[in-house]
Parts: sequence; structure tokens; C-alpha cells
Amino acid sequence: MDKIFRVNMTDLTTKIEEVPAAWAGLGGRSLTSTIVSAEVPPTCHALSAENKLVFAPGLLTGTPAANSGRLSAGAKSPLTGGIKESNAGGTAAQMLAKLGIKALIIEGAPKGDAWYNLAVGVNGVTISEEKELLGLGNFAVIDAVEARLGKKTGVLTIGPAGELKMTAANISVKDPDSKIRSHGRGGLGAVMGSKQIKFISIDGEGAPGVKIADPEKFKIAARTFSKAILEHPVSGEGLPTYGTNVLVNILNEAGGLPTRNFTTGQFKDHDKISGETMYDTIVARGGKPKHGCHAGCIIQCSQVYHDKDGKYVTSGFEYETIWGLGADCCIDNLDDIARADNLMDDIGIDSIETAVMFGVAMEAGILNWGDSKEMLRLLTDEIGKGTALGRILGGGAGSVGRTYGVTRVPVVKNQAIPAYDPRSVKGIGVTYATSTMGADHTSGYTIATNILNVGGYVDPLKKDGQVELSRNLQIATAAVDSTGMCIFVAFPALDIPECLPALIDMINARFGIALTGDDVTNLGKYVLKTEREFNQKAGLSNVHDRLPDFFKNEPVAPHNAVWDFTDEELDEFWNF
Amino acid sequence: MDKIFRVNMTDLTTKIEEVPAAWAGLGGRSLTSTIVSAEVPPTCHALSAENKLVFAPGLLTGTPAANSGRLSAGAKSPLTGGIKESNAGGTAAQMLAKLGIKALIIEGAPKGDAWYNLAVGVNGVTISEEKELLGLGNFAVIDAVEARLGKKTGVLTIGPAGELKMTAANISVKDPDSKIRSHGRGGLGAVMGSKQIKFISIDGEGAPGVKIADPEKFKIAARTFSKAILEHPVSGEGLPTYGTNVLVNILNEAGGLPTRNFTTGQFKDHDKISGETMYDTIVARGGKPKHGCHAGCIIQCSQVYHDKDGKYVTSGFEYETIWGLGADCCIDNLDDIARADNLMDDIGIDSIETAVMFGVAMEAGILNWGDSKEMLRLLTDEIGKGTALGRILGGGAGSVGRTYGVTRVPVVKNQAIPAYDPRSVKGIGVTYATSTMGADHTSGYTIATNILNVGGYVDPLKKDGQVELSRNLQIATAAVDSTGMCIFVAFPALDIPECLPALIDMINARFGIALTGDDVTNLGKYVLKTEREFNQKAGLSNVHDRLPDFFKNEPVAPHNAVWDFTDEELDEFWNF
Repeated sequence: MDKIFRVNMTDLTTKIEEVPAAWAGLGGRSLTSTIVSAEVPPTCHALSAENKLVFAPGLLTGTPAANSGRLSAGAKSPLTGGIKESNAGGTAAQMLAKLGIKALIIEGAPKGDAWYNLAVGVNGVTISEEKELLGLGNFAVIDAVEARLGKKTGVLTIGPAGELKMTAANISVKDPDSKIRSHGRGGLGAVMGSKQIKFISIDGEGAPGVKIADPEKFKIAARTFSKAILEHPVSGEGLPTYGTNVLVNILNEAGGLPTRNFTTGQFKDHDKISGETMYDTIVARGGKPKHGCHAGCIIQCSQVYHDKDGKYVTSGFEYETIWGLGADCCIDNLDDIARADNLMDDIGIDSIETAVMFGVAMEAGILNWGDSKEMLRLLTDEIGKGTALGRILGGGAGSVGRTYGVTRVPVVKNQAIPAYDPRSVKGIGVTYATSTMGADHTSGYTIATNILNVGGYVDPLKKDGQVELSRNLQIATAAVDSTGMCIFVAFPALDIPECLPALIDMINARFGIALTGDDVTNLGKYVLKTEREFNQKAGLSNVHDRLPDFFKNEPVAPHNAVWDFTDEELDEFWNF
Repeated sequence: MDKIFRVNMTDLTTKIEEVPAAWAGLGGRSLTSTIVSAEVPPTCHALSAENKLVFAPGLLTGTPAANSGRLSAGAKSPLTGGIKESNAGGTAAQMLAKLGIKALIIEGAPKGDAWYNLAVGVNGVTISEEKELLGLGNFAVIDAVEARLGKKTGVLTIGPAGELKMTAANISVKDPDSKIRSHGRGGLGAVMGSKQIKFISIDGEGAPGVKIADPEKFKIAARTFSKAILEHPVSGEGLPTYGTNVLVNILNEAGGLPTRNFTTGQFKDHDKISGETMYDTIVARGGKPKHGCHAGCIIQCSQVYHDKDGKYVTSGFEYETIWGLGADCCIDNLDDIARADNLMDDIGIDSIETAVMFGVAMEAGILNWGDSKEMLRLLTDEIGKGTALGRILGGGAGSVGRTYGVTRVPVVKNQAIPAYDPRSVKGIGVTYATSTMGADHTSGYTIATNILNVGGYVDPLKKDGQVELSRNLQIATAAVDSTGMCIFVAFPALDIPECLPALIDMINARFGIALTGDDVTNLGKYVLKTEREFNQKAGLSNVHDRLPDFFKNEPVAPHNAVWDFTDEELDEFWNF
């Protein structure tokens, strides 16, 4: 039977607990959000001992189900002030699931200045003081932990940004190549830093593995599910070939590629940073155009990007990062963006928040538009070293906006708006405004239906149908985020009739239960309502379900579109 | 008849308007809050063109009534995100009132980078581009404006902090000695900076003066009112002798003098910074122990503080500043605190927000406890010059807390908590929590009744009666802030039966009306409810009417008192 592993950093004790009956059917996001809601006072300071950091693998994580290896991390966010769930690939989720760990809850905070590491294994968690690795970047931490504990060890770690409690700090997860995946958004690295934990190692030795109640049923459903993923043009072809960066040219064409801190919707140098260019570059330099973030991934949207000498630069090189440093900061040099991606992984800072932040910093005059050399210097010498300027930048887009008096700051609930202009792709604007997470494209990815014609088509430039589209996708996503599945399984699930039933069949076969489609929808609704209730108690009301004023006041080229939803129309989102 | 002077900084036009009937009975805070509520979208960015900066003299300002020369400034606050009224002495209020200006409303914002000055006179407002005085401190601006326009000119100005749109920036008002009084709290200097106005000059030439409907009745009431002020032991003796700094020893004795960023309630070196020590120092060095912030002040709680060579250092040297840099930062050198007070006036930054900020900065390790030399350097070289660190510090206590991950940050609605520990003086804690202004002792000064036995006595260490006390005082204060009266008239008004009726008689005689005591109370209630409605629309709900957690979790010596109000008890405040 799965257990809850609980670590108290105030008195440095650990416990193994039974799973409460009410949590038995939950996993991933549904479990982290339930635990945070139940145990964290919504008005507490997110960096205080009262906050808790919760890791939970999904319901299907650790099984052979394709693309089920995502780990949810949850807490009260120091960036948004609301609840946060951020999920990532890497090796940790499957190791935790196979160890029978339903959730790892880290609570309290040390009274002194000492830092610690946690070692998670089949018999529980050991807390040890950590001195050697403090101040190091994430790559060095992973290397050192592997040297100490062996190549197979799982690692969750924070870089200097997390140690300094920067609100854009992320939590890094070791991937199958000993590189990095990230719980990127919402400043969870600062929460881990506030608990004075530099890294968590995971030892899979002796793990009982995941038991499947009905292996035969599971196998059939898993095959159907995999087939659907491979058959769909987005998950089976677009993503594997060009990665998420396939979107640069698509969004530029649609006029929804936010450029120069969201002043226009097209970037004249889009070709230089596009997925197609990236593919050719990777192939020419001997990198890998296809790569998975966790074992069992059959989409392989990641890649390994080399420099012109054929040496490793980065992997997990995502569209949102490339868009943010590229179009939004007017940087047309893909090599410099790749180098920045590597630095952000090493420093441990969210690449979306940071990229959007640089656009605001350019508007503030901290550096010039398109100056990638200065951007790299700021990452290395300021953010990485925690100077005063580095701390401002490491606080994200809102921090720079507040500190420099900038009024055009693309954030919702203080979290940076990613990669898709809400004026010209209105569905995603509804998601940004209403998501319990702050601006977050992954929480209801209407780009599927607004731009990619997946799950039908809703005209991105018109208001009609957008609230309903975002609502349906946010509900479905909250459920998918509970399974441990990669969000990209939504593409086949929206278009291929056998896909979603197969996913539900796998859950039923895993646990020996009989969920219906309605049950899954209800799970998604429950997650959103639980998160919203937490946010309301934390002081985030309907007033915070809004986009910044400049989206209303500034039409964006090429469509001259403005953000024209009324407050009442947006509030309709919660009518379910 | 009084007029509204309106300046539009977007198209650089000015207008003179009739006073709408609904505004006729309003002045000072009741007028600024009414105008901000009516004309500013609550969710707008406080530094955007949609915000408006409103100046209004009080209902009695410009008359011979004692202590009636205060000016209200209002806007949406960039510090709190809510509505703000901040009032100050100086010469501007009486000049505006005598010019027949009911309110000066500044709206819009320039499209380009040019900066401006406004010249207010009997015929309206002239907008001129300003180049010469940009970047200068407030003292230099006042000198230069007097050199340009004559010694008698009134001046409202911002220093480098306002130009840089720091959220602790204030608006400085020239006083009768060409020194500085401040609209200190809530970052109104940043709002003026966002309108790109360096200073506003006021030319009193040709002013029609204030007409009094019933001069004889006014004279009698004014005499009674003045007598009450002079007879009361606080306004007639304590304040004139020691200034507001009389409170250091009193609060230390009461165990309510927040020390070392609110970790204890007594400061071992209180004697070195006390009002008594200050008095002796001023007298020995040939300064002035008594001084008024505006013509007609008969309390004279201000003073002129000299250095050991007998040279001017500062005036308007308040308890809250001395407490903040003294006890709260553990600085025991009154000369260094005086020098800092002068620097803060020159840079144009709120001395309460800044002093509390330094306590948080010391906790963050930016400088050492008690290091007054480094404190002065940070003011001059960092805040004054707008470096990255200076901008963090100039954002106030909350800014430092967020940027450095400090959890013990004494703010409510992001505005710093002043000078009186809410755990050991519980009435003022209710005011801090519930005030529409963010933490603000002046909005409901329960110290009167909790500590000074004015208006009865409510035990500061018990919860009983505190909500009612704060409510009554906040309602009364909102009304007093509408008259142009100094808040210290509340001392005689609470204890001497003839005082309040005389104040009401003066208003009635001024306008030829017949207000009752109930009308005045209703005005106060109207002001608070208007402000609260704005705040709620801006996203500040009951959840924001709370003190930081550490007041609940950390008992404060010497009484080991904690903040123990429940949310429900606090919310009772609004039950009127």
C-alpha cells in the first residue's frame, strides 16, 4: 500500500503515514492541491514555516503507461500568493511511485542557519546537514550527488536562485541523461529554499514497484492509448520533429507571437529562432532532435542542442523560452538563447518568468532590446550571484515592473504571461485571467483549438465560445495533471475517440475501480474549485482574474486586436 | 465661489470647472477620496495615465481657525494598491484655499519623455516644460523656484525618489521657513512622478481669500477652539515642549516601542533618542524647540534641530522617524537620525516607510543593526542615486521583504507599520489592520486612549473595547481630515466638552450652514465607506485587513503579548 512520507524541518523529524481514505483516489495535482488546501493556512507567508512543499506522482506514474512520468509539486506560491501546482518530467516521479510514496510532504522550517539534504528511500527519509554543495548550480549538484550516491539516484535540487529565495526560482529534477527538467513556475524553488533543503536524493533500491490490479486490461488500454498518441499529427509528428518550438512560425503567422514586451504580434526575425531552423541546426551539429523527458515518453518533444563545435548546450529547449528571449526580447540568436536556457537551468530559475522579465527589464532600460550578451551577463553575474539587481530580476516580471515603475507588465496574479498574445488568441487570455495558477498556458491550452484545430476550431479573434473552451480545457487539464500524464496527451484525447476511454481504462485497471468519464470531469472540477477556494481565502478574488490594462488599451498588430472581455464575461468562467 | 482646477497631462490642457453640487460640502480627505472614487478605475495601474492626483485644502483651511492649514493629497496608491489620502502642513493649503481652489485634479500622463512644472495662480494653471531642476533634491528645488518666482511662492515638489517612481516616494510641501513638510505615506510622489511633474508652484497674488458667512459667530467659536487646544495637557504642553518625540520614553515605559524590527518592545538606549534629550540638545545648540508647520498653528510640535556646530540639520523631526531609525534599527545617535531625516526630505521619501524598511534591511543582512553610517550612505549613494539596491530600498519595507525573502515584514496592505507595537497596544493594531490606508497610526490614533488617557482609558493589553475605540477614532479622524485641521486637535476634542462644538460652529459659520455633531460623524462614516468600496473594487478585501503572522506567533517583551484578534473580531470593525 502507498504511504505518505512526511518531513518536519522545524524539529528535523520524519514520519511514514497511512494514506487517508479521502486521498486514496487522488494523485499528482489533485493530491498536492488537496494537501496544500487542507494543511496550509491560506494567508501564511509563503516562505514561512507554515507553508508546505508537497511532491506527488500521478495516478498512473510508475506504470508502463506511455507519457505517465510527471511529478506534481505543490505549495502556496511566493510569486502569486495563491496555490501552486507545477509539474515536471525527469526520473523522480517514477522512482517515488515505485517506492510506494503517494506524496512527500515537507513542512516547517529550521530555526537555525544550517542547510540540509533529504535522502528518500524505501524505509523513509533521512535528513542530513549539507555544507558542501551550498551555492552550487544544479548541474554541479546533480554530478556531486551521483558521485556520492551512484548514477541511478534521483535528484530534486535548487540552484542559487532557490537558496536566495527568489520568487522566480524553480525546482530542478534530474532527467534520464542527468540533465534538468523543472518544476518551473510559481517560485517553488524559493519554498524549498525557505525550508533550507538544497537537494533531495531518491534511492530506488528495493522499491516494491507499482501493482496493477488488472494487468491484462491495462495492457490493452495502454496499447490503444499509445497508438492514439502516435497517430495524432501534433503528438505523433509535429512535436517529435520540431519540439514545442514548432510554434514560433505558427504563432507568428497567426499574429499571436508577442514581440518586444507584447507591443506587436509578429517578430521579423522569427525564422532565425523557429523550430525548423532549430531542427536543421541540431541535425547539422550532431545533436538530438528527439528526446524524452522521462522513461516511457513516446512523444519525444525534447531535444539536445549543441553549439557549433558540437558540444552540449541545453536540452528541454522549449518554445516558451525561445519565444520569450527571442521575439519578446527581440533576440535573434538561437545559440545565445540556448546558452541562456542552460544558465537558467543551472541557476534554477523559471525560463518563462525570466524571459518575460527580460522584456520588462528592456522596457525599463536596464538593458537594450536584443542585447543577448548583456542578458547572458545579467544571468551569470547578477541573478546567479544574487546581487541587488540580480534579486530584482530573479523576482520575475512583476518584481522588475514594481521596482522600476513600469506600467506595461504582462502578468496575472504576478505570474508572467507566456508566449501567446491574449488579444489575438482570446481563448488563452481567458485561461491566463481565470487560472488558479496565475498566467499559465498549460492550465487550459486553448491554442489547441484556437490555432491548431485540435478538438474543433474556435476563432481566436472572436470572443464567442472562448470562456466555454477555456473552462472545458482547464477542467480536463486539472484531471490530466492528476494522472501523471504529460499535457500533450490532450491532443489525441481531443481528436481520437478511443484515446480518453483508454486513459480511463488504464486508471481503472491500475486500481481495480470503475471510473466513468463523468468521474474524471468531476475530479477536474473538484481540483479547480479546491484551488480557487484556497486562493479566495488567500485574498485573490475575481478582481485578480483580470489581464493588465494595457491589453485593453493597446491594439496589437497585425489584427489590431484588443482584449475586450467584460468582467462579467470572465466571471462566467466559474459558473460550473 | 470655489472652483475645481483640472490639469490633463496627456494633452497638456487645463480647465477651471464649477464645483459639482455633491462636492460642495466636502473638503480635504472627504473631497480627495470622493474624487478618486468617482474618477479613478480601482483596478488601474497606479502609475498609469488612468490614475489621478488630487490636492484639496480642508473645509476650514484659509480661515483664521487655529491649526487649519493642512492639505490633503489623494490618488490610488502605488504602495498599497488601494485609495490613499495623505495630509501635510506647509504653506500650500492656505494659498490654494485663498485662491478659491476647492481641488486641483491632475490626470493623464505625457506620451513622451518630457517633464513639466505647473504654475497655479488666480487665473488657472500653466503647464511648462521643465529641464533645469530634474534630478535635484527638494531643498534645491525650493530654492530655485523661489529664485525664479519669489520668496512667497508656494511649492509642491518631488525629489529623485518621485522621479524614479519609487513606491515610498512622497510629495514635499514648502513650509513657512522654506523647509519641507511631506505628504509622506503611500507613494504619492511616484504618482506625481508618473505624471512627469517635477514641481507645482503656487502664486497667491490676487487671491480673493476665504469668505466667512458669519464672521462674528466664527470669531467666538475660534476663540473657544484655540483655548481648548492650549488648555489640554497634550496639545498645550507635552507636544509644544518635546514635540511628538515626547513619545519615545512613554512608549518605552509602556513596552510598546517596537525595537530591532519588532522583536522586542523596549529599547535599552531610549534615553539617547528621547524627546527630553532632544529638547536639551536643541536648546544647548541654539535650535528651536517650538515651531509650527503652517501659519496659524498654536501647538508648535515641530522644532529646528541643529548640529553641534549650531548649523541647521532638520525640522519637523517626528517621533515616528526617530523611533524607526532609532529603536527599530537600534541606532542610538540622534545626530545621525537627524541627518537621515534631512536626507529623506531632500530625496523625497517617506520617513516612516523608509525607517521601517531599514529595520527589514538589517534583518535581511543588507546592513548591520545600528550601523547609522551605512544607513546614511545607503540613503545618499543608493536610494538618492536610484541604483538597483536603492530602488529596492526605495520601494519600502515590503519591497525589501519580497526581494530578500524576509518573512518578518511589518506591513499591512504593503504599507509599513509605525512606531507602536500592535501586540502591546492593541487598539492601534485594530487601526493598522482595518484602515483603508494600510498601516497608518494617524487614521485612528488609539494611543490617545490606550496610552495617554485621553478620551478615557482602554487597557492597551486587553482586547476589550479596542475595535469600538478604533472605529470611533477612525470615523472622527476621517471627518477631522476633511476640515484641514491638524490631527492633534483630537486631544482637546476628546477631553474638553466645548472643543468639538466650537469646531462644528466654525464650519457652520464659514459656510452659513447648520451641521450637527451627527452630520460630522456621518461625514466620517461616508469617507471610510467610500474608501473601502474603492479598495474592495481594487482587490483589497477583508483578507487584507490583517496583521502579518509574526505578530500572532511571536510574543513581544516585556508583556509577552501576542496579537490575538480573530478574523471575525476584526471584521466587526466595519459593522457601522
